[in-house]
Amino acid sequence: MAASVEFWFELASTYSYPAACRIDALARAAGLTVAWRPFLLGPIFRAQGWNDSPFNIYPAKGRYMWRDLERVCAKHGLPLRRPTAFPRNGLRAARVATVAADEGWAGAFVPAAYRANFAEDRDVADPAVLRALVASLGRDPDDVLARAESGPVKDALRARTAEAERLGIFGAPTVVVDGELFWGNDRLEDAVAWARRGSA
Amino acid sequence: MAASVEFWFELASTYSYPAACRIDALARAAGLTVAWRPFLLGPIFRAQGWNDSPFNIYPAKGRYMWRDLERVCAKHGLPLRRPTAFPRNGLRAARVATVAADEGWAGAFVPAAYRANFAEDRDVADPAVLRALVASLGRDPDDVLARAESGPVKDALRARTAEAERLGIFGAPTVVVDGELFWGNDRLEDAVAWARRGSA
Repeated sequence: MAASVEFWFELASTYSYPAACRIDALARAAGLTVAWRPFLLGPIFRAQGWNDSPFNIYPAKGRYMWRDLERVCAKHGLPLRRPTAFPRNGLRAARVATVAADEGWAGAFVPAAYRANFAEDRDVADPAVLRALVASLGRDPDDVLARAESGPVKDALRARTAEAERLGIFGAPTVVVDGELFWGNDRLEDAVAWARRGSA
Repeated sequence: MAASVEFWFELASTYSYPAACRIDALARAAGLTVAWRPFLLGPIFRAQGWNDSPFNIYPAKGRYMWRDLERVCAKHGLPLRRPTAFPRNGLRAARVATVAADEGWAGAFVPAAYRANFAEDRDVADPAVLRALVASLGRDPDDVLARAESGPVKDALRARTAEAERLGIFGAPTVVVDGELFWGNDRLEDAVAWARRGSA
């Protein structure tokens, strides 16, 4: 049995919002911990020839996703307000999440950042928004934001994104358990069950 | 409460296989009937700029899909053998399914056609395969195949595909309940629940 599940997420990703709000409780109930893995979808999408979210490139798919996300969030009791801009640049937030993951407070920061984007229509690319989020968690925003923009953290996020591509990740959220990929908010339960019973 | 759920499917679609094998029992348990809606994804994909399955165009997504489909089929106790050709042209089978839907035997034919493609690696574009499937259901293959290739059935399938596009369908399977779309094998249960409680 795996001791943890890796939760790979991109801060701009819509379905990562409910998933980020659900994964911790699901894992905990199964006696597992969550390894938070912020990465960037942009480079992966660009390698597929996309310069925008596929939900913008393919309008029928986008219309469906927003409606489906409403139903999914309603099902899980999560607030949703369609952001006035989509996708928002998740780079800065991913760097903060990288710091948070290193220090063990990603489980608080990541869901808060998704709520800011998808329930409160706040721009998570704006340093002021990120500072407020960090401060609300009792962390020092000057210190955290400075480290988030430091060379080692930038490099770590770049390496993480390259690792995502190597693992075969093509979308977010993706849960990885012993190299097995589970893509989408719909697969969280399956991923946790997989980790519990061990790989096939 | 809706009396039926519309099951929109493309015979070449991988995730439509488990869905087609599951929808009837799910609907029946909820006191609903299934309206079988064969259509063609080809024209819809071409309108999005794709000349092949997105699972072939985007290899990481394709690799994931085949592995995920294994897990999904195992979960539902469905046999799976990865077809030696993908996607197989679903046009002829969709025409036969159009006849079957008109005459009330699609619930037997459609799952059998998917099993042929995805569990038995038979080419459902081959008239001999379709004839054998039709005969195995106690129908006259000469009669059915002749009608499947008649003008009115070709027109009906073309009209159905245009209707799919109008409804906002962009992939298969899609269940439609009172104009509400539920995309994917993962959403069958939600679609049936939606039909039971009536639209929001």
